[in-house]
Amino acid sequence: MAMALPTSITHRYVHALEAELQAWLSQRTPVGHHYQMLAYHMGWCSESLEPVSGPRGKRFRPLLCLLACDGVGGRWEDALPMAAAIEFLHNFSLIHDDIEDHDESRHHRPSLWKLWGEPLAINAGDAMLALSGLAALSSSGDGEISRRFQETALALTEGQYLDMSFERRMDVSSAEYFEMIGLKSGAIIAFSCEAGGRLGGGSETQVEALTEFGRHFGLAFQICDDVRGIWAGLEQTGKAPAKDILNRKKSLPVLLALERARGMDLDRLHGFYDLRRDEDPAVISDVIESTGVREEMAAELRSHLHRAYEALAPARLVQPYEAELRALAGSLVDVASA
Amino acid sequence: MAMALPTSITHRYVHALEAELQAWLSQRTPVGHHYQMLAYHMGWCSESLEPVSGPRGKRFRPLLCLLACDGVGGRWEDALPMAAAIEFLHNFSLIHDDIEDHDESRHHRPSLWKLWGEPLAINAGDAMLALSGLAALSSSGDGEISRRFQETALALTEGQYLDMSFERRMDVSSAEYFEMIGLKSGAIIAFSCEAGGRLGGGSETQVEALTEFGRHFGLAFQICDDVRGIWAGLEQTGKAPAKDILNRKKSLPVLLALERARGMDLDRLHGFYDLRRDEDPAVISDVIESTGVREEMAAELRSHLHRAYEALAPARLVQPYEAELRALAGSLVDVASA
Repeated sequence: MAMALPTSITHRYVHALEAELQAWLSQRTPVGHHYQMLAYHMGWCSESLEPVSGPRGKRFRPLLCLLACDGVGGRWEDALPMAAAIEFLHNFSLIHDDIEDHDESRHHRPSLWKLWGEPLAINAGDAMLALSGLAALSSSGDGEISRRFQETALALTEGQYLDMSFERRMDVSSAEYFEMIGLKSGAIIAFSCEAGGRLGGGSETQVEALTEFGRHFGLAFQICDDVRGIWAGLEQTGKAPAKDILNRKKSLPVLLALERARGMDLDRLHGFYDLRRDEDPAVISDVIESTGVREEMAAELRSHLHRAYEALAPARLVQPYEAELRALAGSLVDVASA
Repeated sequence: MAMALPTSITHRYVHALEAELQAWLSQRTPVGHHYQMLAYHMGWCSESLEPVSGPRGKRFRPLLCLLACDGVGGRWEDALPMAAAIEFLHNFSLIHDDIEDHDESRHHRPSLWKLWGEPLAINAGDAMLALSGLAALSSSGDGEISRRFQETALALTEGQYLDMSFERRMDVSSAEYFEMIGLKSGAIIAFSCEAGGRLGGGSETQVEALTEFGRHFGLAFQICDDVRGIWAGLEQTGKAPAKDILNRKKSLPVLLALERARGMDLDRLHGFYDLRRDEDPAVISDVIESTGVREEMAAELRSHLHRAYEALAPARLVQPYEAELRALAGSLVDVASA
């Protein structure tokens, strides 16, 4: 995605976060190129395993965790191991999603399986998941927060299961879609905010407010991603254009379009998504757009972002952190272009 | 493998263990067939998801954990969640290994990926790993034991990395082979014994002795498995005959045979393993056998089993548990046929 996070926020945390992430990998005893594959995926080395400072993920999930910790009056440094655990957990899911979806690129670079093959990439993803569990355990909180972390990992697999199974089904409802993205995207974002609040010593009211903020923001974020998956080009997402169309992914725009379309448009969508006929992706995205679904998605997105902001109010967070949490969320869901 | 565990040992634990394992899955809120795929893999339901009591794994790793707990004077019931975690961790690695090695069957049934495809099976394995972490966290020990558990999960991925990379290399030494099986097989078996000792309140001497016992037994077990991978037929392993030959797996017998063979035999092995020429697997296993490697493997196996038994002595475990630990180990490595 092309949008940048507000540097006024990121500059405070991003060096320490990146150092924390790198330390978890560099303290492992090397085993062939096993951990260097993880370093490649994290954006720290090139295909030939030379150090690079190329395009990386935004790390916005751990940043939410650190901001939430500051926001309840905690010390953000105390949340660093959990922030690293969250980023590793997210990256584990990316490595395996890329294999499962056959996505050949990630952040404008070849995906891990494309370079090293599926068997080694599956195993590298497993290492990333185990490493995330290790980092979560070194967090300063009690055992309960590690348990919530593993529950979040399990939720990711539940969401991914639903996501993949929807591609084969003809009768997915929008309620099912929201359940799926809640598990696949919402759970880890909500946990990022929750964990920061807990590790910062926030009250139950604050932790609940932060969790609810994360949950709604996570939904808005995924809706935005789904819109981009249909209408954004390579330059914006680092993925092939209309990748979700090529994968026949039944994201919310598709589900709603299948409900709304009539006549030839409906035949076309049904033929492509359900009967798996060949179609030009550009035609499919135009048909979906013609049903008015794109505006509807923008409205859903605005609604969840609004509910996220509202949920945050009762937490009465320390400033400037509440404003920064809002700004971070707002920078990640492009209301204008959605 | 055809050998049965001593029922005098298993009858004490196996029902409670199986109930503990099943409880972890059945307490999850159902998500499509996601968790039923795990239940299929565990041997609790059929391909059509009907309950069955068919062939299952031996569960010997969790049994080691429970025996070790009893052996230091603890209550084996206290080690049940960790025993379940260990069995889930082992099964996570089986689900992914089957995908990575393209093994089509497991315990005489189709492997998970063969039934549901690779993407869903990768994701099911991920769920099994996350579930194992959750079970480990509910164990009665302190945070350190969960940390050791996650370290063991990471060691599994390191061993699997080495195992896969050896298939592509021409210069693997037997020292490297032992490093690999120590990570891939030894670490989880050693941890099973260690965890049981710790959760039972054993002394440091006892825990160290149990760990060392597990480490050597784990090596013996893997050597035995490698011997079977070359010389055992379908009826013994539940896998295709000479599966390790078909996969050109450079297990220890192959490495040693490559060092020992001369003339036409060496050309044949080199041609098959390094130049990837086609060969009849039966011819390859005969050539390996003709180098005398099979006897050498049997000697290695006996040596590690002996060292395992010796390592156990200083623990001065409560009887009959020491004898039972030995009997369990002895029942799993078939010294006579190796």
